[in-house]
Amino acid sequence: MAKENKAFVKEITPQSEDFSRWYLDVIQKADLMDYSPVRGCIVFKPDAYEMWEACQRELDKEFKRTGHRNAYFPLFIPESFFQKEKEHVEGFNPELPWVTEAGGDKLEERLAIRPTSETMIGHMYAQWIQSYRDLPLLLNQWANVVRWEKRTLPFLRTSEFLWQEGHTAHASEEEARQETMQMLDIYTKFVEEFLAVPVIRGQKTPSEKFAGAVDTYSIEAMMKDGKALQAGTSHFLGQNFAKGFDIQYLDKDNQLKYVYTTSWGISTRLLGALIMVHGDDRGLVLPPKVAPTQVVIIPIGPQKARAAVVEAADSLFAQLRDAGIRVRMDARDDVSPGWKFNEYEMRGIPVRLEIGPRDLENRQVVLVRRDTGEKTFVPLDELNTALPKLLDDIQVNMFETAKKFREEHSYVANTLDELVGYINDQRGFVLAGWCGSAECEKAVKDACSATSRNIPFEAPAQPAHCVNCQQPAKHAVWFAKSY
Amino acid sequence: MAKENKAFVKEITPQSEDFSRWYLDVIQKADLMDYSPVRGCIVFKPDAYEMWEACQRELDKEFKRTGHRNAYFPLFIPESFFQKEKEHVEGFNPELPWVTEAGGDKLEERLAIRPTSETMIGHMYAQWIQSYRDLPLLLNQWANVVRWEKRTLPFLRTSEFLWQEGHTAHASEEEARQETMQMLDIYTKFVEEFLAVPVIRGQKTPSEKFAGAVDTYSIEAMMKDGKALQAGTSHFLGQNFAKGFDIQYLDKDNQLKYVYTTSWGISTRLLGALIMVHGDDRGLVLPPKVAPTQVVIIPIGPQKARAAVVEAADSLFAQLRDAGIRVRMDARDDVSPGWKFNEYEMRGIPVRLEIGPRDLENRQVVLVRRDTGEKTFVPLDELNTALPKLLDDIQVNMFETAKKFREEHSYVANTLDELVGYINDQRGFVLAGWCGSAECEKAVKDACSATSRNIPFEAPAQPAHCVNCQQPAKHAVWFAKSY
Ligand SMILES: [Zn+2]
Ligand SMILES: [Zn+2]
Repeated sequence: MAKENKAFVKEITPQSEDFSRWYLDVIQKADLMDYSPVRGCIVFKPDAYEMWEACQRELDKEFKRTGHRNAYFPLFIPESFFQKEKEHVEGFNPELPWVTEAGGDKLEERLAIRPTSETMIGHMYAQWIQSYRDLPLLLNQWANVVRWEKRTLPFLRTSEFLWQEGHTAHASEEEARQETMQMLDIYTKFVEEFLAVPVIRGQKTPSEKFAGAVDTYSIEAMMKDGKALQAGTSHFLGQNFAKGFDIQYLDKDNQLKYVYTTSWGISTRLLGALIMVHGDDRGLVLPPKVAPTQVVIIPIGPQKARAAVVEAADSLFAQLRDAGIRVRMDARDDVSPGWKFNEYEMRGIPVRLEIGPRDLENRQVVLVRRDTGEKTFVPLDELNTALPKLLDDIQVNMFETAKKFREEHSYVANTLDELVGYINDQRGFVLAGWCGSAECEKAVKDACSATSRNIPFEAPAQPAHCVNCQQPAKHAVWFAKSY
Repeated sequence: MAKENKAFVKEITPQSEDFSRWYLDVIQKADLMDYSPVRGCIVFKPDAYEMWEACQRELDKEFKRTGHRNAYFPLFIPESFFQKEKEHVEGFNPELPWVTEAGGDKLEERLAIRPTSETMIGHMYAQWIQSYRDLPLLLNQWANVVRWEKRTLPFLRTSEFLWQEGHTAHASEEEARQETMQMLDIYTKFVEEFLAVPVIRGQKTPSEKFAGAVDTYSIEAMMKDGKALQAGTSHFLGQNFAKGFDIQYLDKDNQLKYVYTTSWGISTRLLGALIMVHGDDRGLVLPPKVAPTQVVIIPIGPQKARAAVVEAADSLFAQLRDAGIRVRMDARDDVSPGWKFNEYEMRGIPVRLEIGPRDLENRQVVLVRRDTGEKTFVPLDELNTALPKLLDDIQVNMFETAKKFREEHSYVANTLDELVGYINDQRGFVLAGWCGSAECEKAVKDACSATSRNIPFEAPAQPAHCVNCQQPAKHAVWFAKSY
């Protein structure tokens, strides 16, 4: 699907010049998406969709390992459902698209397109849960959802996006809280180990929590422009939805009780995150575990030696494919190796394997890492062990590099002036003391557009005073501009 | 999630009494679905959704093997898109739900919820395809779609359903026609071998083809009430959508040419099909390949021997799970074995494994097939070979049984009276000669509500005259009432 364009690498705006422009350039040139004629809705092209499928497979395994099952609930939600949980309706109403006509008739009740399914699932759970024997109820849904956002950005904030939403119901608060934390743990491990994106775990402040939750926990990642991206959330919903939708069960003691519920989700915005955390001025840099293609084989050398080289490359292709590596071969001879090197670097393929006539003689290949550019010669008979190891090294190095970057762009501020200075001049995350008042949080936002990301479980410092009012601090909070 | 109910088997209406009632009883009691508060939209509960996931995995493998890649296109389709292919708009307009407001504003152009994505994908293909080098373009999408049907039936015809839709573009008619047939072949193999549902392959008559297609091919299955269910379709779209959406490419000869496109799909209605083809008065009968649980282990025997039996059952559970069998164990001791037998028969689990104190002594287990009820004693040390073989036997037997049923309910009619007699009195499929006129097709429908299912590639007979007008027959056509 890609058009040949020998100058395309030059067309990517450097990150230092305009990070947003770089992002928009790279996702299109790497053929990950296209804009659709519907505002804020994108097309997920195969390379992007396959990354999402890889995420699905990996997470789904974890969900099932921890006792969850998948189900599928309706796309449409009756308007009345949004009235049943007050905060929830206030949070989501401004973003809802409404179906008002269908099958040639005006509908009696408008139907929202789901922005999230707590309400529909709450309604069904009320019918399915009768006794303590029905608990816990642990379901997950992979689905599309729609939020009609004012400002959109491909992958990060699109009108329609793909996600998973887990919804569980429990007999006790303790068990529901354990579930909330368990899922945050699963997200952390997944994002750090599979996407090589380091995250900060913590609790959202009341003004930033999910509409309808008692407590929201998040994992926050730092993009290369220093902005934060909320990579996953897990909500303890208490009995809010249970009371709104009347989800009660008969307990062992013969008393009717409300359940405690949780919900948790990650979405296709993770694709935006991994692009913004790892990409560089040459294009994408994809972590091996999620890359649709892990290794691209490029035969090189003069025309007269070509047949033998391509034959060897073909057999390497089969060998690596059979070893379970996602490999691709580009033996086109109407395109130069240099053009191909640029192309696959731009697409972020973790390893390039070059093989030429001299390599054939020496029974070796050249491996070039996308993350560091490092070249190594590997004997042919060591390839099946060297390559998986190299992919592992790249995965680990990408995580460590991203973590180092985050550490280098993290600051501690004692005063609002300091905080504003870091945000505006250094870009990054700023840890600050917070007294717990919404006004002080708002003062930060008004001063520099940074919002509280979360109250980290493990803060690198514990400032004694609120960054705004200088009263005693209740919490250390990470502030940052965010996507 | 199931409530205990010792009398539930009696609550399933016998098929002979009221097949529709039987169907509605069994899908709810087997915990496959629930009704939602939105008209015609159901909840896919875990057992049903897992069957769909199994279908996805199996088909996706075939799609990828034949060079297709997955992508994701927007849910919303601008109203103007439906004007670009005349037959398509006429076919789908009556069933569209419309989003007219979003994010607090009235939309300038109404957005349809996709009923199928030829239009959106046609629009994108026009931008992606420039040169013969971009062809063929072979994409598939797994998605939800919505058709606001007047009469709905769970799984078979729901307002929202899940499906895959393949969309391909080709340089030549020949290649597009080959693709159309290749996908019909893949569907045939999948439905027959994976779902154990025999199908009749053939071409739809013009009045029954997809709105916008040049030719539609289908696979048709017979339900146990003799009605037909269209289990999959593959469309040769010619240049209809290429012209409507201006999908042109520069060919090697430097001429701009329209592409030829195809589309093909199967949906969650297949779940309805496999229930109606295999189910019996005791409930579901699931083919082993698609069954969420293939074997259920039930320890039996008196309380005093229970500990040893349950221990043995536990170890069998681990042994079978490790052998890759989808196994479940029910060691509850507050429910009788008889109740469990009924429960798991109703849920259609292919094999029940019983183990009791005497079996322990004899180092054997009892296997009971769901399809035939046959009981066999199997030595413990042969279980790992005997069980997969039994599952294969069940799979094959279910297909053969369904095929025999279809053959026993297939008739050949020479006159309209004969045809009406078979449809009304015998129920089933009737093969008849057809002159090719839409009026004769309509005469059959008016006489007995049977529609033409398809013109089979391999007809068991070739009637010489049209069943209605008695003019020479151009085709042999299968007629049946259908879902
Ligand atoms: Zn303060
Ligand atoms: Zn006729």
